[in-house]
Amino acid sequence: MQLNPDERIDQLYSQDIKIIQSPEVFAFSLDAVLLADFARLPARATSQTVDLCAGNGAVGLFMSHQTHGQIAEVEIQPRLADMARRSIELNQLGDRLSVYEGDLADVTQWIPKDSVDVVTCNPPYFADLPDSQKNPNQYLAIARHEIATDLATVVATTSGLLKMTGKAYFVHRPDRLGQLFQLFSENRLAPKKVRLVYPKPHKEANMVLVEAIKDGKTGGLRFMEPLTVYDAQGHYTLEVEVLLYGRA
Amino acid sequence: MQLNPDERIDQLYSQDIKIIQSPEVFAFSLDAVLLADFARLPARATSQTVDLCAGNGAVGLFMSHQTHGQIAEVEIQPRLADMARRSIELNQLGDRLSVYEGDLADVTQWIPKDSVDVVTCNPPYFADLPDSQKNPNQYLAIARHEIATDLATVVATTSGLLKMTGKAYFVHRPDRLGQLFQLFSENRLAPKKVRLVYPKPHKEANMVLVEAIKDGKTGGLRFMEPLTVYDAQGHYTLEVEVLLYGRA
Repeated sequence: MQLNPDERIDQLYSQDIKIIQSPEVFAFSLDAVLLADFARLPARATSQTVDLCAGNGAVGLFMSHQTHGQIAEVEIQPRLADMARRSIELNQLGDRLSVYEGDLADVTQWIPKDSVDVVTCNPPYFADLPDSQKNPNQYLAIARHEIATDLATVVATTSGLLKMTGKAYFVHRPDRLGQLFQLFSENRLAPKKVRLVYPKPHKEANMVLVEAIKDGKTGGLRFMEPLTVYDAQGHYTLEVEVLLYGRA
Repeated sequence: MQLNPDERIDQLYSQDIKIIQSPEVFAFSLDAVLLADFARLPARATSQTVDLCAGNGAVGLFMSHQTHGQIAEVEIQPRLADMARRSIELNQLGDRLSVYEGDLADVTQWIPKDSVDVVTCNPPYFADLPDSQKNPNQYLAIARHEIATDLATVVATTSGLLKMTGKAYFVHRPDRLGQLFQLFSENRLAPKKVRLVYPKPHKEANMVLVEAIKDGKTGGLRFMEPLTVYDAQGHYTLEVEVLLYGRA
């Protein structure tokens, strides 16, 4: 396996997954681990899952144990798509995982509309406002800010890919949840489950996980058990410890 | 103080508030205590707060220590409005608290549009569907089911009453939050804070508290520290104990 000088191989111990990372280009964060854990993929070999804004492919890799089906990772940045391809090879998952390098808005050039069981996405969190402070590193700026895509495009693309009753899983900042729900209702998606993620006790949430169903009935929204990342002593909580290391 | 045979005087110890209750007609629940605690009323004597779907007036009474201003309680059921009036008298709060007996849809007959600083509401939680199981007790059925009003009317009335930048506080079931946000966006209300209430650890939320601002900027939604009612041993958590009894 060829590594660039800035790259290293990290491991998600809980799943024995190796992943090529680069602090200069892209490294997965807890968000990816939580999204992969929150998503529910059909186990059958004929199922099709698509991960949009895939970055170095962390979410796809971390979900791969859930299914015998196909997982397609869509990433616009060539350097990140290349890392994702090599991580798939490193884990010998090439028979089920693949990378589509390009703009997610063009995804139906590769994957037919209305054909997908599950779409996951850890999108850029921050609006690309004229006055927003962006990372001068263009790789990181594109991953974090809505430069190459935006939430409206992500949601419309997600809905376009999904079959009826297909499921979408997103992780985002809580302050975008109102807009996300609005976009869902404009794109035939009904939110069904929300899980708030709190950094530690007595703090407000800094992350939210959402499940939506295409052409699902509106109503029946559930707010699942909250997830707290650190305890009062600053250690990972039991749940996060298990997600990262497979044991407490 | 005249009590009907079915009535009793209960106390919210944390605030030294007495309240006339009747298990046959209406008795406040934790929802009212949490809503009154979540709401923030301007302290000034010129402020105007309106509590819609006031029932026996619990929310208004429990918020009364927050403000020197006026609190109007709107209740459609004469029997409950009468209990609310007598509880105001019992607590000697008649100079600041008042009861409007009637349909909240007609509220601007008594209180001018665009004049109110804060609107609170603990509305009927359940849709009045043809097949919904309703309490045969009509008092309780009206308090719990959308028989005499519905969420769309509550939100439109709330927005109509509020000044620009006035605040609305609602408590509801989590499965109605999507609809509530939709109604907010149709009625010039921007959700700003949400607090999920969980019955005990490792359970999904069964209640949600929401703050919205009239003509507020969209975005910036915050999910505050979660509130859990009972601990794993089935005792009230410290926060709830303090809300109810004023001490742990």
